[in-house]
Amino acid sequence: MSTSRLPLKKYPLNRAFCFFESGPVLLVSTLRNGRANIMTISCHMSMGFTPLIGCMIGPWNHSYNALIETGECVLSVPGVDLLETAVAIGNTSGADIDKFAEFGLTPRKGAKVGAPLIAECLALVECVVRERPEHHEMFVLEGVAAWRNTERKEQRTFHARGDGHFIIDGETVNLRDKMVKWQDCI
Amino acid sequence: MSTSRLPLKKYPLNRAFCFFESGPVLLVSTLRNGRANIMTISCHMSMGFTPLIGCMIGPWNHSYNALIETGECVLSVPGVDLLETAVAIGNTSGADIDKFAEFGLTPRKGAKVGAPLIAECLALVECVVRERPEHHEMFVLEGVAAWRNTERKEQRTFHARGDGHFIIDGETVNLRDKMVKWQDCI
Repeated sequence: MSTSRLPLKKYPLNRAFCFFESGPVLLVSTLRNGRANIMTISCHMSMGFTPLIGCMIGPWNHSYNALIETGECVLSVPGVDLLETAVAIGNTSGADIDKFAEFGLTPRKGAKVGAPLIAECLALVECVVRERPEHHEMFVLEGVAAWRNTERKEQRTFHARGDGHFIIDGETVNLRDKMVKWQDCI
Repeated sequence: MSTSRLPLKKYPLNRAFCFFESGPVLLVSTLRNGRANIMTISCHMSMGFTPLIGCMIGPWNHSYNALIETGECVLSVPGVDLLETAVAIGNTSGADIDKFAEFGLTPRKGAKVGAPLIAECLALVECVVRERPEHHEMFVLEGVAAWRNTERKEQRTFHARGDGHFIIDGETVNLRDKMVKWQDCI
């Protein structure tokens, strides 16, 4: 796993919920028996400021058993320059290929979990499995360390519509002064 | 509640997950004791094709008790022309005002639940509460009827970043032919 210098900087954990709340496509990396893997997800939500993140990962995903067995993963937010890579990751299986090698991504050692950071992503959170609600293939993940790539030019994320179309971030509007009820959170 | 003709058309329920999967800001409408209310949410995720939608609504929200007592709501996707309205809805309380009247929105009777459709929105799903996982202020909602405003020019949605900034949809990219593993879903 690479330990070379890459422009990832530690980020305040209690602000990391802002990486996910807009619903971008995420990459989930795991490490089991020395083998790293990556999957792509779009079904996730912010569940708390810790941060807590709920996400849907089922036994039909090769990463499912790694997540169950190790209780750890990294959630990474890819920029739009990684759109086709994220789709390719979501349409191949870690049972067949080494996705880091196949897609030219750089695994980097994190601070708190064994699963690798994906150095090319723009924001990353190391997570542990906090809970598994019954009846659904849902994991509640708790972030334990956060990182941000501060030198990356492309900061736009992308969102899956669920029908094979992807929506790229457009304009960002600042309405902080209208959030009168939530000034403590923003 | 208005029954006048508005350009909402029934939409295939098993395709309605595509309204939510990209993570747009949603409006949640409820009806309790003859009084309609609306809240704004950004923490939700697609949990299944039924559709099932997980969302975070806590007792700090005035809509919480209405949702608990009636077991019903409507999830509506506002277009970007409703961005400031959605933020204003999220920063006022139904304990103080009638939000439909205050914000000039049109309640319309749905097909399956008592909670009103918001006629100005671009996509809507009537929902019943299917489950309440323990330990979190989470509801699992099941869609029972879906609608789409087919005559609306503005189809862009918007996403909350959680820090008072909102990301408006930009370009949409069609990568259906790359979704080789998921052709049955898209």
